[in-house]
Amino acid sequence: MKIVFYGANAETFRPGVEAALGADHQIIQVSDAVATAEELDALTTADVVIGVHYRAGAPTLTCKMFLLPSAGYDAVNMDALPEGCLVANCFGHENAIAEYVMCALLTRHVPLAEADSQLRQGDWTYWAGKPTGLRTELGAQSIGIIGHGHIGKAVAARALAFGMSVHVANRSPLGGTDYAGTYGLDELPAMLGQVDIVINTLPLAPETEGMIGADAFAAMQPHAIIMNVGRGAVIDEEAMYTALRDNRIGGAIIDTWYVYPSADAPNPHPSKFPFHELANVVITPHMSGWTYGTIARRCATLVDNIRRYVDGQPLVNRLR
Amino acid sequence: MKIVFYGANAETFRPGVEAALGADHQIIQVSDAVATAEELDALTTADVVIGVHYRAGAPTLTCKMFLLPSAGYDAVNMDALPEGCLVANCFGHENAIAEYVMCALLTRHVPLAEADSQLRQGDWTYWAGKPTGLRTELGAQSIGIIGHGHIGKAVAARALAFGMSVHVANRSPLGGTDYAGTYGLDELPAMLGQVDIVINTLPLAPETEGMIGADAFAAMQPHAIIMNVGRGAVIDEEAMYTALRDNRIGGAIIDTWYVYPSADAPNPHPSKFPFHELANVVITPHMSGWTYGTIARRCATLVDNIRRYVDGQPLVNRLR
Repeated sequence: MKIVFYGANAETFRPGVEAALGADHQIIQVSDAVATAEELDALTTADVVIGVHYRAGAPTLTCKMFLLPSAGYDAVNMDALPEGCLVANCFGHENAIAEYVMCALLTRHVPLAEADSQLRQGDWTYWAGKPTGLRTELGAQSIGIIGHGHIGKAVAARALAFGMSVHVANRSPLGGTDYAGTYGLDELPAMLGQVDIVINTLPLAPETEGMIGADAFAAMQPHAIIMNVGRGAVIDEEAMYTALRDNRIGGAIIDTWYVYPSADAPNPHPSKFPFHELANVVITPHMSGWTYGTIARRCATLVDNIRRYVDGQPLVNRLR
Repeated sequence: MKIVFYGANAETFRPGVEAALGADHQIIQVSDAVATAEELDALTTADVVIGVHYRAGAPTLTCKMFLLPSAGYDAVNMDALPEGCLVANCFGHENAIAEYVMCALLTRHVPLAEADSQLRQGDWTYWAGKPTGLRTELGAQSIGIIGHGHIGKAVAARALAFGMSVHVANRSPLGGTDYAGTYGLDELPAMLGQVDIVINTLPLAPETEGMIGADAFAAMQPHAIIMNVGRGAVIDEEAMYTALRDNRIGGAIIDTWYVYPSADAPNPHPSKFPFHELANVVITPHMSGWTYGTIARRCATLVDNIRRYVDGQPLVNRLR
């Protein structure tokens, strides 16, 4: 088969897939911009396209399978894909994201960099025994996780290991768990009002866009922080910015955004609001899931689905 | 009873104990230096002394119970205490230490501060999709925990939640666990040779002093790091320094030391070797267990043991 890796993101997965599939298939790289006639020909005649986006105006495909090496598929225009084209996505990013989340949360409690810098100068401010050195514990905090998919479960497992009180809001009901509380997505305010940390793990879809809005921020405790490792637009941009600017909540750790780099604007601020000027936020460039482990796990899924297609077996993570 | 809090460290626990015991007892604070005749009288006539040290040359006590609000008792000269004086220590620091450990380990993988600083300038270097932004995962690493007491168990539980491969070396044999490997303390080199992270959680005692020496560092893999959250002198000072200086191991995260502040030298470097000049270490001032949660849990233990003594019940954590 002719397998095309479409774009720079997809290219990251090519060596792993190529190594596993060997010489069985013709494997071609095409740039995001589809910059040459050769690239256009390869993309439009590919049997399998691997990519994270297929936007309005992109060349018409004839592929039989479109594989996303990512979880979110909001940048793929499903309706414009060929009739009968199979589509599947990949996970394998949940452990990476949970590490980002726990690192960001623990860093709020353990002043490692500051203590290291001080001790190198002979300053023992944080020495045990001094009241001035006392810190708080993450384990004493409660977390409200929105979404109980791959990411939500991975975060919950680690939060429980730290002794945190874990609350989860999910579309479908959760039964028989270790959680301190479970809620439907229509019961969000009840959860938001009682936790120290709120984390969105939901993907973007018509029913999740703007789901966390001004009412959600009004329900949160004044000291509570919000995290976003799902998709940016699940949280209302202006509502979050004003809640942070006016210190109506304690802070935010934001990894997923409203504005992303493009060919025309490679170095944008990540929102039309100046989050980058706020002191009560940690902002990162949609990096939480981006590890060698994620690449390896997703390559395994891509290879599995290509072999399944060749063998006439049902795909894993099939979206349509 | 007359209860004396002896020294600045013990003083941290006084409000909590006082609040719980109310007006049942006479509670007096005495400075580390026992600076006045009143302090000397209070200390030498106390029924209960609460403190972390009782060194050679300290005033002769007549107390019936000496309670350490700490785990390590290497600074208490047991032989100089009155005959029949009960001694007990406190734990309750293990969750705090495990948070320090996991924070220090995760920080090696997730470049939060750097990514935040970059994104505030519109720099998306760590954006998912760019090969330049890929990071490694803590969950892919193996850890060798030396000691399976309160600290070792708390670290192991969290490491397992991250999917790490957990090896444990302990004095007494461990059976039926989730661990990838268990070892006697006499089998240390076998464990040290196969893990990415070595962590000492052992207290100082004649049999543990210098236990981790040049042979241990020779057994470690070149990329491996060592952590110390037990007692400094369990690791041979010069062997660790030379291994780090010569890059024979990957690095170190060191919280417990060889030199501590004293009245004469309040701002010392923590070793006679210049660890503070090394780039491959994180050094912190014996802070890992020092949290409000630790204070609260230890106050509960102190109050419990005072009540047990009054009621004629056996002490918890009794050392003699």
